[in-house]
Amino acid sequence: MTQGARVRKHRGMATQFDPASGTRDLLAADVEKRERAFGVIRSVFSRYGFEPLQTPAFERLDVLLDKYGEDADKLVFKILRRGEHEASGEADLALRYDHTVPLARVAAAYGSRLPSPYKRYALGPVWRAERPGKDRYREFVQCDLDTLGSVSPLADAEVLSAHHDAVAELGIGEFRVLLNSRRVLAGLLDAFGVPDELGAGVLISLDKLDKLRPGEVTAELGQRGLDPDRAAELVDVMTAPDAVGRIREALKESDEGTAGLDEVDRVLSLVAPQLPPGRIVFTPRLVRGLSYYTGPIWEVVAPGVSGSLGGGGRYDHLIEQLGGPDVPATGSSLGIERILTLLPTGEASPHSRIDVAVTVMGEEFAGKSFGFASAARAAGLRASVYLGSSGKLGRQLRWASDQGAPWCLIYGSAEDEAGTVTVRDMVSGEQTAVPVAELGEYLGRVAGSGQGDDHE
Amino acid sequence: MTQGARVRKHRGMATQFDPASGTRDLLAADVEKRERAFGVIRSVFSRYGFEPLQTPAFERLDVLLDKYGEDADKLVFKILRRGEHEASGEADLALRYDHTVPLARVAAAYGSRLPSPYKRYALGPVWRAERPGKDRYREFVQCDLDTLGSVSPLADAEVLSAHHDAVAELGIGEFRVLLNSRRVLAGLLDAFGVPDELGAGVLISLDKLDKLRPGEVTAELGQRGLDPDRAAELVDVMTAPDAVGRIREALKESDEGTAGLDEVDRVLSLVAPQLPPGRIVFTPRLVRGLSYYTGPIWEVVAPGVSGSLGGGGRYDHLIEQLGGPDVPATGSSLGIERILTLLPTGEASPHSRIDVAVTVMGEEFAGKSFGFASAARAAGLRASVYLGSSGKLGRQLRWASDQGAPWCLIYGSAEDEAGTVTVRDMVSGEQTAVPVAELGEYLGRVAGSGQGDDHE
Repeated sequence: MTQGARVRKHRGMATQFDPASGTRDLLAADVEKRERAFGVIRSVFSRYGFEPLQTPAFERLDVLLDKYGEDADKLVFKILRRGEHEASGEADLALRYDHTVPLARVAAAYGSRLPSPYKRYALGPVWRAERPGKDRYREFVQCDLDTLGSVSPLADAEVLSAHHDAVAELGIGEFRVLLNSRRVLAGLLDAFGVPDELGAGVLISLDKLDKLRPGEVTAELGQRGLDPDRAAELVDVMTAPDAVGRIREALKESDEGTAGLDEVDRVLSLVAPQLPPGRIVFTPRLVRGLSYYTGPIWEVVAPGVSGSLGGGGRYDHLIEQLGGPDVPATGSSLGIERILTLLPTGEASPHSRIDVAVTVMGEEFAGKSFGFASAARAAGLRASVYLGSSGKLGRQLRWASDQGAPWCLIYGSAEDEAGTVTVRDMVSGEQTAVPVAELGEYLGRVAGSGQGDDHE
Repeated sequence: MTQGARVRKHRGMATQFDPASGTRDLLAADVEKRERAFGVIRSVFSRYGFEPLQTPAFERLDVLLDKYGEDADKLVFKILRRGEHEASGEADLALRYDHTVPLARVAAAYGSRLPSPYKRYALGPVWRAERPGKDRYREFVQCDLDTLGSVSPLADAEVLSAHHDAVAELGIGEFRVLLNSRRVLAGLLDAFGVPDELGAGVLISLDKLDKLRPGEVTAELGQRGLDPDRAAELVDVMTAPDAVGRIREALKESDEGTAGLDEVDRVLSLVAPQLPPGRIVFTPRLVRGLSYYTGPIWEVVAPGVSGSLGGGGRYDHLIEQLGGPDVPATGSSLGIERILTLLPTGEASPHSRIDVAVTVMGEEFAGKSFGFASAARAAGLRASVYLGSSGKLGRQLRWASDQGAPWCLIYGSAEDEAGTVTVRDMVSGEQTAVPVAELGEYLGRVAGSGQGDDHE
């Protein structure tokens, strides 16, 4: 829950000052947590040689519409024409719906001037006019990495591996990568004699085997028109204790199945040796709803988390369908908003806004205090002077404490006379008189000893 | 010029694949340059105890409109209502125009649950439907820092100082901060007997003294209805070699002028000791167009750069006018897009996408090669395997060179037999046979010796 959501919940009502429906104000702790996570992700992707691409928040309407079908089009935020055209009530621009359509446009615009293969990541907000709900927003960050221009299974393995490493480095303890191939699924339908026209529906039902009981799925397959015996046989194989072995056997009877198995084994042989044992598993019932996948597909799942932490696969014709060039492609999308909800709010909590709080004991010492804050910053610390109107030390110490500052500097008449600054340890209450000229060095030393720079 | 703009200029035409008018695709080198700069800015602001605030890209239309007048409203991108309401042609949301209206809304929403004073920065895109032009975009990043809830000149000095430090740390060599106060301007009009109703116009003309010749400004003042003698006297004082001294004298005759001088001197006495000599200068002719300022105002200028690198001032009633609570406020806005054009494109050019390029000398060695890339990453290096279809070493070395990789790993039959990896220094062409088990350690060592981690 964001701070904003917490506060609203606390107040129990929406007000005219709330952000627009389905959007959030992110205050310091949330921004810092998110930026830390994004930093980890960028660093992992960069280590794999993926480079950043940032496209505009909005695209021309014709670039965005008619790409994912009518239902998706309804979720697009459209921007009204401007000036004299505003009265027409027509839109000419729209907020981006994902990062893939803009990628297709960029691939078309730059063509051979992009590196080949083009390995890029995109990390930024997209907008969809979905009905807002718990953890479902209309403005949310999507994080995609894709390789355009390679048919090699190494490209699939690399994308999958980078996705894996990002999730691992973010600190998600337990998770698994489920691996399958669209060609395995095609082979499965083939091997079990599922008529072509029932194929898509059968896969949708099989995809529910992790949620429904086997009997329910068998019944659903029957309703879809599949012969009851075949349906029972199929569900039986897929839910058997030795399901993977039996499916491997069955797939050998079909060319497509054999090719699919090869594909899966190729990716497994590349990726598995780099991962902890059992981290990646061949999962024949994995479907991943989207119909545009053409080869290996994968999904990252964690125990106790419904839905996935993202996934991806090879999609060799989508870029062309989206208006780009005809290039092979493979990619993965991190379910970053869901991942963020699993991460703890970090150390840089709002309880430590600064390292050094500097009191201002009267206007005549304001210049000195301002200079001390500057010296603290030069020593790499976060520092702020007291900006309130009270001249009372007690009040100012309370402010220092509210800021979560481990140190507080005090400089009044006594210090002015002695040529020292009083450095107060806000935890122990211990006070040290430090000669003015040595303040920077002193603060640098205490900072170096631990509490200092972890806000970066 | 962005890569995108360069490419379009090169082709000499716009295409259907261009981003929407006034927007840009930012490819790797641009993104990296910008992110580096934003990192510096965040770090400086954080050292001053400012905390980040991120508000949504869009606000409800009523939050945004009627805040800055009709001309500004025309520049707002409005979002069409959705679903059954789309046909109405009406808008209910709009892209944010700046960071100040959202700040006012957040201040109203959170009230006393925000820290007091609330020191926040906002760094993110805003959208304005201006006519696009050279270095003028419809989507551009604004970077604001503001302190709400303090009337202290220390708050003005702190904001100004943080703005200064950000510009300095970004590496802008020569620049100055011009300082003035709205009360100095009021006192000036007072001291020279300018009628109240002419005040605003006279200030607009005086603001042109850095562009027009004195005679032209005098004439313009006359056209505005100011007595010609007074106009000549005013321009004479303001352009005299000892202008500041003469103006200081003149201001003493007016209460408002005296108060304004005190204000300027107070900020100068706090900030100037921390800065190089001559960096901040009292500039009585500085007006800063916006009428909402109520106290000190400042502007950052650099030689050879028309316009400013940003500026700000105290604006004690604006937050309330924008729909927020009645709190005193002071803030500064960095002209970040202009600053970015002054910065060199950094080291992390597209010519060095990775540190270690790993060849794949046949499918049988793909697994090994994939593992070597993984080992290089574990040593903190950016690494990628070859994803193309050629099995020829020459072709793969050309790819490694195109990636700007300082090292290339080669592993074929000979290496497989010897249990070594060939590490090729791509600059010298020198090749070293490294035992497979020692690869990670070896790469860590060469990385540590220099070329490695500067992509972070």
